[in-house]
Amino acid sequence: MAEETLVALRSLMTSHSPKLDALVFPSEDYHQSEYVSARDKRREFVSGFTGSAGLALITANEALLWTDGRYFLHASQQLSDQWKLMRMGEDPAVDIWMANNLPKAAAIGVDPWCISVDTAKKWERAFSKKQQKLIQTSTNLVDEVWISRPLLEINPVIVHPREFSGSSVQEKLKDLREKLVQEKARAIIITALDEVAWLYNIRGTDVSYSPVVHAYAIVMLASAFFYLDTRKISSETSFYMEKNGIEVRDYNAVSSDVILLASDQLTPSSSIAILGRLGMITLKTGVWVDGTCCFALYSKLNVDKFLMQPSPLGLAKALKNPVEMEGLKNAHIRDGAAVVQYLVWLAKQLYINMQELYGASGYFTEGESVKKNDQPKYLKLTEVSVSDKLEEFRASKQHFRGLSFPTISSVGPNGAIIHYCPMVESCAELDPDSMYLFDSGAQYLDGTTDITRTVHFGKPISHEKACYTAVLKGHIGLGNARFPTGTTGHILDILARVPLWKDGLDYRHGTGHGIGSYLNVHEGPHQISFRPPARNVPLQPSMTVTDEPGYYEDGNFGIRLENVLIVKEADTKFNFGDKGYLSFEHITWVPYQRKLIDASLLVAEEIEWLNNYHSKCREILAPYLNATEKEWLNKATEPIGS
Amino acid sequence: MAEETLVALRSLMTSHSPKLDALVFPSEDYHQSEYVSARDKRREFVSGFTGSAGLALITANEALLWTDGRYFLHASQQLSDQWKLMRMGEDPAVDIWMANNLPKAAAIGVDPWCISVDTAKKWERAFSKKQQKLIQTSTNLVDEVWISRPLLEINPVIVHPREFSGSSVQEKLKDLREKLVQEKARAIIITALDEVAWLYNIRGTDVSYSPVVHAYAIVMLASAFFYLDTRKISSETSFYMEKNGIEVRDYNAVSSDVILLASDQLTPSSSIAILGRLGMITLKTGVWVDGTCCFALYSKLNVDKFLMQPSPLGLAKALKNPVEMEGLKNAHIRDGAAVVQYLVWLAKQLYINMQELYGASGYFTEGESVKKNDQPKYLKLTEVSVSDKLEEFRASKQHFRGLSFPTISSVGPNGAIIHYCPMVESCAELDPDSMYLFDSGAQYLDGTTDITRTVHFGKPISHEKACYTAVLKGHIGLGNARFPTGTTGHILDILARVPLWKDGLDYRHGTGHGIGSYLNVHEGPHQISFRPPARNVPLQPSMTVTDEPGYYEDGNFGIRLENVLIVKEADTKFNFGDKGYLSFEHITWVPYQRKLIDASLLVAEEIEWLNNYHSKCREILAPYLNATEKEWLNKATEPIGS
Repeated sequence: MAEETLVALRSLMTSHSPKLDALVFPSEDYHQSEYVSARDKRREFVSGFTGSAGLALITANEALLWTDGRYFLHASQQLSDQWKLMRMGEDPAVDIWMANNLPKAAAIGVDPWCISVDTAKKWERAFSKKQQKLIQTSTNLVDEVWISRPLLEINPVIVHPREFSGSSVQEKLKDLREKLVQEKARAIIITALDEVAWLYNIRGTDVSYSPVVHAYAIVMLASAFFYLDTRKISSETSFYMEKNGIEVRDYNAVSSDVILLASDQLTPSSSIAILGRLGMITLKTGVWVDGTCCFALYSKLNVDKFLMQPSPLGLAKALKNPVEMEGLKNAHIRDGAAVVQYLVWLAKQLYINMQELYGASGYFTEGESVKKNDQPKYLKLTEVSVSDKLEEFRASKQHFRGLSFPTISSVGPNGAIIHYCPMVESCAELDPDSMYLFDSGAQYLDGTTDITRTVHFGKPISHEKACYTAVLKGHIGLGNARFPTGTTGHILDILARVPLWKDGLDYRHGTGHGIGSYLNVHEGPHQISFRPPARNVPLQPSMTVTDEPGYYEDGNFGIRLENVLIVKEADTKFNFGDKGYLSFEHITWVPYQRKLIDASLLVAEEIEWLNNYHSKCREILAPYLNATEKEWLNKATEPIGS
Repeated sequence: MAEETLVALRSLMTSHSPKLDALVFPSEDYHQSEYVSARDKRREFVSGFTGSAGLALITANEALLWTDGRYFLHASQQLSDQWKLMRMGEDPAVDIWMANNLPKAAAIGVDPWCISVDTAKKWERAFSKKQQKLIQTSTNLVDEVWISRPLLEINPVIVHPREFSGSSVQEKLKDLREKLVQEKARAIIITALDEVAWLYNIRGTDVSYSPVVHAYAIVMLASAFFYLDTRKISSETSFYMEKNGIEVRDYNAVSSDVILLASDQLTPSSSIAILGRLGMITLKTGVWVDGTCCFALYSKLNVDKFLMQPSPLGLAKALKNPVEMEGLKNAHIRDGAAVVQYLVWLAKQLYINMQELYGASGYFTEGESVKKNDQPKYLKLTEVSVSDKLEEFRASKQHFRGLSFPTISSVGPNGAIIHYCPMVESCAELDPDSMYLFDSGAQYLDGTTDITRTVHFGKPISHEKACYTAVLKGHIGLGNARFPTGTTGHILDILARVPLWKDGLDYRHGTGHGIGSYLNVHEGPHQISFRPPARNVPLQPSMTVTDEPGYYEDGNFGIRLENVLIVKEADTKFNFGDKGYLSFEHITWVPYQRKLIDASLLVAEEIEWLNNYHSKCREILAPYLNATEKEWLNKATEPIGS
């Protein structure tokens, strides 16, 4: 199939006017989303690589796929012989590769809805040296050859109540308009799905894992527009929008409205009350566009005065209000209880119910496994079947609305594939002699969760324990940090790595990302990463951020430990420079496996933190567990070093 | 006097054509040096502020001085009422201030020899918004009003022998010319004094603290020029230059030669043999200029093809060869012995010889002081008198050639003035109830040194001990780090701060700088700093770098601990990603004061490091000490926690 697709696409490239020397397929949809709907998985369809991040490029003779370190192993396993894997950070970047390898004056096609302004401009700069041209195709050429492309779904838009959002649309629009006035902008175009959902307090099911709606928004000083397939709007929701001064328009109308906006002719229908008008409106000429805006819309703007700068909604959304913080904490407690129930169930399956098949010594004991190679008498425990069980535990919890990303459930060597996604037909069986890593999370009405734990049900070797302990030390080192106001996650990243570096170990991914309030599991604008950030957004009180160092040994095992943290003011003894100092509050509650910890490698401060965390797990999760589970948790959280 | 200077300068600004609205005085000389000769201290003369870094600005009504965090206290004490202190990092930067506060189309004068291309261009960008203009004055206006300006000195140029340099001029020129070919440059203009000295293997005494000669160099593919006051050259040195294919020309000829270079007409005299010519010389059009080149020379170049990029000599000089590394280690051992001798002497002065006056309990004992307020029977111990004694100990050592920077010898509150420089007439007396911080270093023929220790001769309070221990923990944390190849000092900086941040403490300066091989005490291109570096130069094996965290409490005390480290390959258990891991080797040998260490705040790894370091101090310094000194050192280096 892949080969036919390549032939068909190359034929379309030749017949395109102008003839295309190359055709690019980013992973993103029309909103630069990380997770996209099934019918937007064009890059996956073309290349066969299912990872969430990557970019495919087809020329007359070559087919190349760029992806990052998380996916090197994954992609190399999935790509056919016709595809060449390009390793980001090692091989030349895609724009540099095109500039160097494509002929002079080459025409490089791309669907301008699938590429951001920032990327398009960067590529155009690279292309200018050899007079190469970025060609905006009028349709997406993949759609023409993708016969089995999933159909469009009409999913209802749901209003997210104040009980969970903590802030009304009126309040959010007011704040946004104040920012427009400050920056002398007359309008802002919002293309990121989570920003639209956050601003208008709406949620949906258009995309897997992210509870968003395919929609755009344009907000002006006295009007606001909401572009989506209007069939998704009930009359109640329609009334809600109208009441808030938001005019609902069809998804496709955004193109022509942006053209009108460019010439300052975009006005609301008379039926929409003009709300939120600010006292005095002086002449504002700029239209605020974020660099992630799709190139297609940007190209239609054609106005002199852009305000090309990050959308203010990124930071506004990242700073959780008290209701959101409370919701996130509650969601993480229920989620922690589900994960503990899962561990209890899993240990029992491996040890008692399925001893004949698996013979694991269990969660607590370090005995050799007594695995027999008999035919299974029970249903096998596979990476997929157990993760389905994990989902079941979560689904039983209040406010559950689905998973927040594809569960990574990985045994042994699969754990070293950083964003491994097990498939029913090919996934591995649980193995009492191997590490088991699971990274998972859910969407609850009151918050989004994300947690990783790594466990062993047999006898871990001392190398595995040493690596687990080094990862744990990094996890504690970062989570326990105190730092002055103004510090970025980039500066803090090393705290999670130093214990690994001591032994010459490291990991090829960032250390932390923001997490949404019943929204995207990955959100910015802050991050904790060794890469210098494009924007230096410091960590600020009420931001969420994950703390997830790891260590991965290709062909052997993977270890990762992940908690969600909330940034808060620190209670330091002093306050040098009157800067104010910050620290983190952990909101994830699931024990670390004591069996995998080499306590001799921990210092007193780390042991104290660990014992304190474990005792809190006991206290916080107890109300959600039955007697057996509580007993298990008590044992799992016994103090270390006592 | 200061007032008269302002009146005279303002009068010159008015009579200048065009009339100047502002006049800027950078601290730097014609080579952008950190330390400048007495006759180049124009900024100091104008403002009265003696710190090494800063910038003065005079307008018709105002006089402002910008300086950085190290000098806030220092400058506020030295500036007269007519001057306003502008705090870098808090107040607007000088270019922003000028753009905002000077009138439209203002003329801003500067001596173009005293400002770098990078700075001039940055200012011109800021000025363009209001059509303000940077005016290059044809003379330095300060020189016209500075009646007592020190006279020009004619100091001989000394050839630095291969025994210390480890590499011949021929080898250095060959490497440099290879870089020119690589970068398609036909010439490079070298303006930094330490780069000229390093390249031509010459040293001098034109500037205090840095053993350099006021000189420029131009190197082309088949010729090399050396611009200096030719009276400084002996016939032997002249022969050395000729032999190496270097043509000596007068300092002032550099202007006209750069004009010739611009039109490719710069050629050596026929008497100079053309050496080092590379096999095939294709047409190279670029002239390589570093951003630190003075604006005056840059402005004369006027060629189409610049290669505006950092001089390759910065990195070449930073990567020490084996002879330089050996020399640096030896110099630091002799220097350490001098510092130990100083501490022994100082403790004895304070405790035994001068007990009647000072009554200190001594270096080892924590007793209350028994200071009497009698009239002194002995010569007082002042910050200056004791630092003279320290210089005496150093001067007695082999290869001593002077200090590498003004000694910071500071008692109690003066220690909080980060770059405090005690004056004979105003300096404080030693005080057994106060911390004493000394940061000092020397120039030896085989290497440059830089060390800071903080000590207490009475009874330190527990807060002082806690702060000292936090600084020590940071000092050890950084010095003990292991990190993958490619890591910058910016990334590592936090390791020196986390123990302070835990208590809400911090310090307002960078953590480390490179150090020269009988050259500048501060050199790049790498550094260890919380500020994102202009150039991301990673730490590389054979680089030197200091490790000097601190903590400063205004009005109370200052603490700083500083060692010099050499970057080396680390002997890690693993080598994840085949990156290669690096670590540091300490080359400074002076004990930390055990009395000031609160061992209960240290972890086992830190105690082990400390005891190991102390035992090495004993072993390494012993051959340089007498019996009393050895006894003292043995006591000072007794294991902690045993």
